[in-house]
Amino acid sequence: MIYTNFTPGPSQLYFTVSDHARLAFKEGIPSLSHRSKQFEKISKETTGGLRALLNIPEGFHLFFTSSATEIWERTIENLVAEKSFHLVNGSFSKRFYEIAIQLNKKAEKLDVKEGLGFEEGIVAPKDAELIAVTHNETSTGVSLPLSIIHSFKKNNPDALVAVDAVSSLPYPQFDFSTVDCVFFSVQKGFGLPAGLGVWIVNQRCIEKAEALNKKGISIGSYHNIPSLLSHALKNQTPETPNVLGIFLLNKVVQDFLRKGIDNIRRETEYKATLLYQALEHHKLISPFVKDKNYQSKTVIVADCQEHTEKLTKFLSEKGVNPGDGYGSFKKTQLRFANFPAHSKEQYELLVDSLSAFEG
Amino acid sequence: MIYTNFTPGPSQLYFTVSDHARLAFKEGIPSLSHRSKQFEKISKETTGGLRALLNIPEGFHLFFTSSATEIWERTIENLVAEKSFHLVNGSFSKRFYEIAIQLNKKAEKLDVKEGLGFEEGIVAPKDAELIAVTHNETSTGVSLPLSIIHSFKKNNPDALVAVDAVSSLPYPQFDFSTVDCVFFSVQKGFGLPAGLGVWIVNQRCIEKAEALNKKGISIGSYHNIPSLLSHALKNQTPETPNVLGIFLLNKVVQDFLRKGIDNIRRETEYKATLLYQALEHHKLISPFVKDKNYQSKTVIVADCQEHTEKLTKFLSEKGVNPGDGYGSFKKTQLRFANFPAHSKEQYELLVDSLSAFEG
Repeated sequence: MIYTNFTPGPSQLYFTVSDHARLAFKEGIPSLSHRSKQFEKISKETTGGLRALLNIPEGFHLFFTSSATEIWERTIENLVAEKSFHLVNGSFSKRFYEIAIQLNKKAEKLDVKEGLGFEEGIVAPKDAELIAVTHNETSTGVSLPLSIIHSFKKNNPDALVAVDAVSSLPYPQFDFSTVDCVFFSVQKGFGLPAGLGVWIVNQRCIEKAEALNKKGISIGSYHNIPSLLSHALKNQTPETPNVLGIFLLNKVVQDFLRKGIDNIRRETEYKATLLYQALEHHKLISPFVKDKNYQSKTVIVADCQEHTEKLTKFLSEKGVNPGDGYGSFKKTQLRFANFPAHSKEQYELLVDSLSAFEG
Repeated sequence: MIYTNFTPGPSQLYFTVSDHARLAFKEGIPSLSHRSKQFEKISKETTGGLRALLNIPEGFHLFFTSSATEIWERTIENLVAEKSFHLVNGSFSKRFYEIAIQLNKKAEKLDVKEGLGFEEGIVAPKDAELIAVTHNETSTGVSLPLSIIHSFKKNNPDALVAVDAVSSLPYPQFDFSTVDCVFFSVQKGFGLPAGLGVWIVNQRCIEKAEALNKKGISIGSYHNIPSLLSHALKNQTPETPNVLGIFLLNKVVQDFLRKGIDNIRRETEYKATLLYQALEHHKLISPFVKDKNYQSKTVIVADCQEHTEKLTKFLSEKGVNPGDGYGSFKKTQLRFANFPAHSKEQYELLVDSLSAFEG
């Protein structure tokens, strides 16, 4: 039986990836020097493709890191002298906050219960230099409406806004005039092997990092923003990066561009609608996130209670591998990624299988 | 024509890697959760294989990072409160020193000219907490005799000894009773795609990191030693790692074990002898490192002066891709990696081609 991996990351590979990997080995990409013209060309195509796909304006720079976890750390190191402010509504937004504490910052947070989101009109502490927000809580399936993220600047014009878009991109179209940095890792929505993160920063981030550096605050070394920037301007990286990962990202971004971001968004919405409808009409299971405004389109969480184990087995027999619930929800929830790698047909199979489950 | 890549990293892939990569995609490794039993098994096999290959004693732990560059940073963050001491004899040992300065430590260094090494009897400043040494200077082809590295503890019993073995492992057999941490990245001697570093640390390193943490000194977040350790004890990693890279490392380590480390070392020495003899007898070019005790077995640098460009072209026509000289030596030197991925036959072709060059 062919299994489809609905875990929210690492997830199903995009269907072209194994062919691209074969080509990479044929062309000697894994041996390619990261100081070669050929690497610079691949790097430039990748960032150019991402700019086109996500509609990233001039004035923003794209940096390659090893993971989004790394970007949590680099964001705090480079953009916060003393205080960051975190919207916490699940395990991943909480981890971002904890990293700030580990880095000896005076981080503050606004907590809401798992399964809930935040409303417009949030005012951060006056001395918060950064507002850190997780667009899509992979742990609970709560996605913040973009209008909320885009509204932060209104009440907090001096704070930088950092958006963790790990399990939502390429789906959301951010208004980049209202945010300062956005980041993701490639093993979720881009359907790629793990080991690469992308950090998108604007001029205000660069100036902030330079200001901290001037004050004698450590902003890290090889992956601080000035070092990343000086190399990115040459389409290079400070260290020997995951060259194969960057090559594969480029190929998938080109595939996405050919398919068209509008198509990808439409299909994402179609598949999400299918699954939420099935969950809402089901006798035994239901969507964990009740408020439709906060229901994630890309990570859909089903509240399955005592049926969880049996449902997992039932789905597995149909070729559907769901993701476990996260943390304390491991035995009562299932999570379903809805990424571009998941085809409409696979979603139809998932929904048919779910609907056929009678306990 | 089939080209052999003699650049010292990223270098020639070990000949089994592309088959292992094909298997990885077939088995769904790039989609594998880093919290799954299957990942833990791969991770455990990899560290177990490295322990056997490099004869790493109990009491040492192995951590996966994204690069050796990252390990420079993590070593300073976790093992130095105030002062590190660096033996600098080329661009990479210098970079290690500079990272300590960037991280606001009071780093000191002992400098010698490029092409030279250090002698036994080095005494570090009394307050140096760490002695940082680069076993094999990839920039110049200077390798320190192991006896020198093993002697540090005698005069400096209280300092930790950190060994950058990036372009020498798996060749050297370190005496782990005289060093505290050793590290490498996989795209050099292990013949793998870049994007993974391995950090080997002992109990003293763990205690030092914990002591710094207790004092309120920031030791980083997800990749600090306590976090790496607590995950490594479960054969996991703090973040989603380069799972494919770890899988491939495991496969190549198993290949190396089957071949036998003694065979690998003997072949390395045979190939190095061939090339140094050819360089010494050549009318136009010569080894850059004059003192035989310091001539690297794994990165061999030829002083080619005005013949560099012509020789590069000449070799290229024979299927030999040399590495450029590093930094200011770009136009006067060529570098040749001598890793397990480079077969005896490829070395014989290299040496025959070099010997046939008459300017």
